[in-house]
Amino acid sequence: MMISRVSKKSATQFMRTLASFTPAKPLHARDLNKQTIEAKYAVRGRIPIRAEEIKHHLQTNPESHGFKFDKIINANIGNPQQLDQKPLTWYRQVLSVLQYPDILESEELSKSYPKDVLTRAKNILSSTGSIGAYSHSQGDQYIRKSVAKFISQRDGHPANANDIFLTAGASSAVSYLLQILSVDKNSGFLIPIPQYPLYTASIALNDAKPIGYFLDESNNWSTNPEEIRSLIKENSEKGIDIKCLVVINPGNPTGSVLEKEDIKELIDIAAEFGIVLIADEVYQENIFQGEFISFKKVLSELVIARPDLYSNVQLASLHSTSKGFSGECGQRGGYMELSGFTDGFKNVMLKLASINLSPVVSGQALMELMINPPKQGDESYAVYKQEVDEIYSALKERSELLYNAFTTMTDVTCNKPQGAMYLFPRLHFNKHGYARLFQEAQDLGVEIDEFYCIQLLENTGICCVPGSGFGQVKDTYHLRTTFLAPGTEWIENWRQFHEQFIKSYKS
Amino acid sequence: MMISRVSKKSATQFMRTLASFTPAKPLHARDLNKQTIEAKYAVRGRIPIRAEEIKHHLQTNPESHGFKFDKIINANIGNPQQLDQKPLTWYRQVLSVLQYPDILESEELSKSYPKDVLTRAKNILSSTGSIGAYSHSQGDQYIRKSVAKFISQRDGHPANANDIFLTAGASSAVSYLLQILSVDKNSGFLIPIPQYPLYTASIALNDAKPIGYFLDESNNWSTNPEEIRSLIKENSEKGIDIKCLVVINPGNPTGSVLEKEDIKELIDIAAEFGIVLIADEVYQENIFQGEFISFKKVLSELVIARPDLYSNVQLASLHSTSKGFSGECGQRGGYMELSGFTDGFKNVMLKLASINLSPVVSGQALMELMINPPKQGDESYAVYKQEVDEIYSALKERSELLYNAFTTMTDVTCNKPQGAMYLFPRLHFNKHGYARLFQEAQDLGVEIDEFYCIQLLENTGICCVPGSGFGQVKDTYHLRTTFLAPGTEWIENWRQFHEQFIKSYKS
Repeated sequence: MMISRVSKKSATQFMRTLASFTPAKPLHARDLNKQTIEAKYAVRGRIPIRAEEIKHHLQTNPESHGFKFDKIINANIGNPQQLDQKPLTWYRQVLSVLQYPDILESEELSKSYPKDVLTRAKNILSSTGSIGAYSHSQGDQYIRKSVAKFISQRDGHPANANDIFLTAGASSAVSYLLQILSVDKNSGFLIPIPQYPLYTASIALNDAKPIGYFLDESNNWSTNPEEIRSLIKENSEKGIDIKCLVVINPGNPTGSVLEKEDIKELIDIAAEFGIVLIADEVYQENIFQGEFISFKKVLSELVIARPDLYSNVQLASLHSTSKGFSGECGQRGGYMELSGFTDGFKNVMLKLASINLSPVVSGQALMELMINPPKQGDESYAVYKQEVDEIYSALKERSELLYNAFTTMTDVTCNKPQGAMYLFPRLHFNKHGYARLFQEAQDLGVEIDEFYCIQLLENTGICCVPGSGFGQVKDTYHLRTTFLAPGTEWIENWRQFHEQFIKSYKS
Repeated sequence: MMISRVSKKSATQFMRTLASFTPAKPLHARDLNKQTIEAKYAVRGRIPIRAEEIKHHLQTNPESHGFKFDKIINANIGNPQQLDQKPLTWYRQVLSVLQYPDILESEELSKSYPKDVLTRAKNILSSTGSIGAYSHSQGDQYIRKSVAKFISQRDGHPANANDIFLTAGASSAVSYLLQILSVDKNSGFLIPIPQYPLYTASIALNDAKPIGYFLDESNNWSTNPEEIRSLIKENSEKGIDIKCLVVINPGNPTGSVLEKEDIKELIDIAAEFGIVLIADEVYQENIFQGEFISFKKVLSELVIARPDLYSNVQLASLHSTSKGFSGECGQRGGYMELSGFTDGFKNVMLKLASINLSPVVSGQALMELMINPPKQGDESYAVYKQEVDEIYSALKERSELLYNAFTTMTDVTCNKPQGAMYLFPRLHFNKHGYARLFQEAQDLGVEIDEFYCIQLLENTGICCVPGSGFGQVKDTYHLRTTFLAPGTEWIENWRQFHEQFIKSYKS
């Protein structure tokens, strides 16, 4: 009955409209959301896109590509397994069992897996059930409890599984937080300059106001609390409602690691002005100098010392499976711990998480494996330990090689790497000494550092990101490079390119 | 040097602030983004949350829980593997190799896997590299090509890998699309009523205007193009800029399947008024009556017949690994095909995808396995075919059992299931026949259908979602239930509960 009715009516309908209407035009920029058009994201911006084109060209024309190099060195993004970093065996063995639990039933298959791998897989499955099922929107409870235990042991202060949200990397935590805190155009977010562009992009998408506070390059890219305080006062007088102070520690792109005293001062600011603190601590495993101290640990100490002053501080600390020794970027695991927030706030967060249904369950499991690795005595311990040590020393060695190369380059300075996966060297170029460079860049309509990165890419295949994509003091020029790429040849090529560049542009 | 400086300054700083400041208050609702507070998401709303409480209570007090039932039947959400649906062996074998590629090198392990599993894993890895690496933000190219091939074969019309975006389920595609199309408060989105609440929630988060068009219950929940046209005219006169027409086919929560003529009429509307079409086709495998016809196929035919009228139509069609025979909800795989959109629009989409870095790579791989399954002659074919057939007939059988049960219940009507995973029966309650019910619901401040669902949950452990969470014609009452739960006992319990309910409330 339905069919006949619809067919009849719509047949005529169809003819009528075919005969009559004038087709509408496609959408143009003016028809789209302004913020989505204006948001910028340098890490995957113009230069990486050009690098993709060249990579494609090299692959399709291996003999006749016409470039001076045969491959692209992706130093633009912290993506260890895109380069040569091998995933940790422990992680991947457990994940393979979670994907194919029949391994647990098959004697033939299971005998090739260490006992602790099988046990861990069973434990996780006993809580998640199939990893093909949606979990609780906040994340599986067994895994959240495990994360809380990790935090308690790391900091020596209790953590609560109900304050943990498992997330798809740290990015989705950032976008939830910024969305909830963006009341209107006057909602202000204090972000470090230089910063990881995810923050400016998310603030732009929420049509809120980014307020950059400068990190002190002359002081190892440390924070300057006095500047932050005056920015708060100044902007509050202008009617800006300061919502949040974002700190990235260890620093991206700067590679700096904050001292306990720096952290205390930033918590003081949050306590005094009632500002939410976002501590982006995804690089907490990547420490080459000094030690990592979590904001949560320092806050816990302050709350014990002076509950009257600090118990209202609202801290969101973020972690991820994408960095550290795992570098499992593509698996999208992460967590956010919400300390000191109201239940009302956590309920709104849970609703946003629910609208996205559930963070990928294999990524949740990976987070559990990362924060609860094999212990001495476990069958997997030896291999795990060896692989982690190798990754750590390889990263440390590469960071030093690259750092040393920059120290020898003309008109380049660079802070010694302390943590994370990046160096952020400064290019000391100025109008007087490099008149032709400034002229050519202007003619092309690009920034000075962007011009350098384009030349670097076209001449060596090395892809990194200009400092202008992260923010920098006016008339200073930087670039961000990872030190993940294996080998030393690319570093030597860079050195040679640089001296050529100086020769042809320095007057 | 840094350390001494910071310590000195901050020590004093720290004492000063300890001594001086008054701590700020925590955030309250007024300090948070209005849209995030007001957005509603019924599928995981009040009743499912109560069900979680009961589940916890049952587990912790197995002997003395005081309920008439021992377990919760989650009929509130399409989450097959949370119930008893076993994942397809083919998917999980390939995914286990992708997670642990050493299987390919190990003779002992690899001999337990079918050849085509190993070959497919190799093919995917040769493009993605480690699945622990970020992919291209739009998704891996080999997988996008495979999706384009699937669409071409499904529809008999070409599809282009550059138009495919791999996404985390269909939800992230929906949120990207709605975000880009929400210019301001006057951006209007036509959504079906009843609808899947992801749409109203996302529209609310973007502070845009939902415009509900009613599906015709008396006509198997089909669409009524005349009503949609008059809604467009009416709202345009009010200054609403209609951006988009959302269609869910097969229907959620209605379980209806659209005819080709219905689809043509909706495309006509998009062509005539320049409205983006979102075709949510995630249930395209779940067809029990009639056949699935994609919007893309019908559009392709129309473009060939009348390019002058139809080549500007902008269609976004969505698919997911969460439904169909896979039901791999927790793996977060999906794709979106953008047909007829400008490059400008696709670039903005790519930027949003880039800000989220990369859809989970194992989910991308799963999508490839879903749309490119084993073929006759492949080693995995027999098992794959058998498992798929079993899942299909189990779902069909359960849908009919549940449908038959509703047809026997007093004052309940229900359309025959055609597709998807849901039934949306109507409860024929009214003020006159059910005075006490209306009184009690009013006293509790809940909707009539919500009251029924609460009673159903508290008495039988069956958790489903009131129609008010999806939208329904005023003074009509429905509920959405999945037919995924195994067994017949829960259906019989429901029948008995219902007749009890009628006895005690019908005057």
